[in-house]
Amino acid sequence: MKQNIYDNPIFFKEYISLRESGVTFNDFVEQPAIKSAISTLKEKSILDLGCGTGHFAKYCIENGASKVMGVDISRNMIEQAKKENGHEKIEYICTPIEDLELHNQKFELIISSLAIHYIEDYSKLIVKVRSLLNKNGEFIFSTEHPIVTARKEMNNWVKDGSGNKLHWALDDYQEEGKREEHWYIDGVIKYHRTISTLINTLIDNGFIVEKIIEPQSIPSGLEQMSKLELINEERRPSFIVIKSSKLS
Amino acid sequence: MKQNIYDNPIFFKEYISLRESGVTFNDFVEQPAIKSAISTLKEKSILDLGCGTGHFAKYCIENGASKVMGVDISRNMIEQAKKENGHEKIEYICTPIEDLELHNQKFELIISSLAIHYIEDYSKLIVKVRSLLNKNGEFIFSTEHPIVTARKEMNNWVKDGSGNKLHWALDDYQEEGKREEHWYIDGVIKYHRTISTLINTLIDNGFIVEKIIEPQSIPSGLEQMSKLELINEERRPSFIVIKSSKLS
Repeated sequence: MKQNIYDNPIFFKEYISLRESGVTFNDFVEQPAIKSAISTLKEKSILDLGCGTGHFAKYCIENGASKVMGVDISRNMIEQAKKENGHEKIEYICTPIEDLELHNQKFELIISSLAIHYIEDYSKLIVKVRSLLNKNGEFIFSTEHPIVTARKEMNNWVKDGSGNKLHWALDDYQEEGKREEHWYIDGVIKYHRTISTLINTLIDNGFIVEKIIEPQSIPSGLEQMSKLELINEERRPSFIVIKSSKLS
Repeated sequence: MKQNIYDNPIFFKEYISLRESGVTFNDFVEQPAIKSAISTLKEKSILDLGCGTGHFAKYCIENGASKVMGVDISRNMIEQAKKENGHEKIEYICTPIEDLELHNQKFELIISSLAIHYIEDYSKLIVKVRSLLNKNGEFIFSTEHPIVTARKEMNNWVKDGSGNKLHWALDDYQEEGKREEHWYIDGVIKYHRTISTLINTLIDNGFIVEKIIEPQSIPSGLEQMSKLELINEERRPSFIVIKSSKLS
């Protein structure tokens, strides 16, 4: 059973209100990193795995992409995407990424922003991504950093009596698999994978690793968001971005 | 000034006695990993950067390498290497890795075992390694894992009152540079670098990343060494091994 937290009404409401604020880790840390990894969008055919409300799909079109297919498991997300970020060059499809079946359609760039840590079978996903890429096509994704997903407990900032963050607690690194957390609702499931699994699975499936980014906040984030929150990214990275290309 | 802890008499004595025990993290975790990353040694010309007492150089010859050059900053190490692991196909040179100058000599495989975290200028090292490799030559190295070197404090296992290890303390991840620790003697200097720096510097200098290993103990280690010590490797990796090849 694929997890679909985004169609939980409580989660969806909270999530949309967070994202619409424009003042999030996505805005200041993750999205700038994933965008910086893209050489060009011009004339590119793009597949966005876990497209959410379609902001990134729209961004691609605004920056010259020839077409975008956005895929998301959540009906709520896809409805919102069609409403807010619809475009004749964008096709939105509501399906779990794992179930996506496209015949005779290939893309020059496949993007996935913070969706892959929800996917149980990473290896199968990479095989699928490869089959959907043109020769020399690129695959760029962000996921939660293994440093952050490793420990089975939640709340891994260890604090002193006054609430100051002393350090980040890491554990269980080599034990890959399910991690459960509370994020607006109980029982949000993510999958921890090591750095070596993230990278070697790509290589073993015929990808060349082009770049690794462990992003920190862009300067405007430090101005607009609680500086304390974003400074944490200097202490331990929340995300990792991996850029790879299909070996021809 | 390049650091040469191995010519400190106290350090050298302790280190040799540790390594000669044959019951170390090197024997059960790091060396098996670096050896597993080597496709073949047969007929290969090999450069060993930070060769220590020459065990690995000898291993290469025993496994069919055509010649090995072993380089180490420590006179003590090189003397011991010549005495214990001398061979007509092995040349030992006493010089800091950073100062190694070879004209018209290239290698098919360059290895470096747990030496690179002592080197301040990683980027310069990678440029040098590239210049010393034949076309399609391979570079395989192990170094302390960024998870382990990140925090500026030492002793990062956080323990409860009974001495049980609760978790590993991580901090300061994005702040690359000097880390000082006590290892037999005070003031042992290592350099912390992020995962992305370790990998991107290779890619930016014309290497292809072939494999990443975050090793755990081999089974015989769990039998022969304190199981508790080696189980820690499941909780957080001490080492990372990176295998790369020169883009032709």
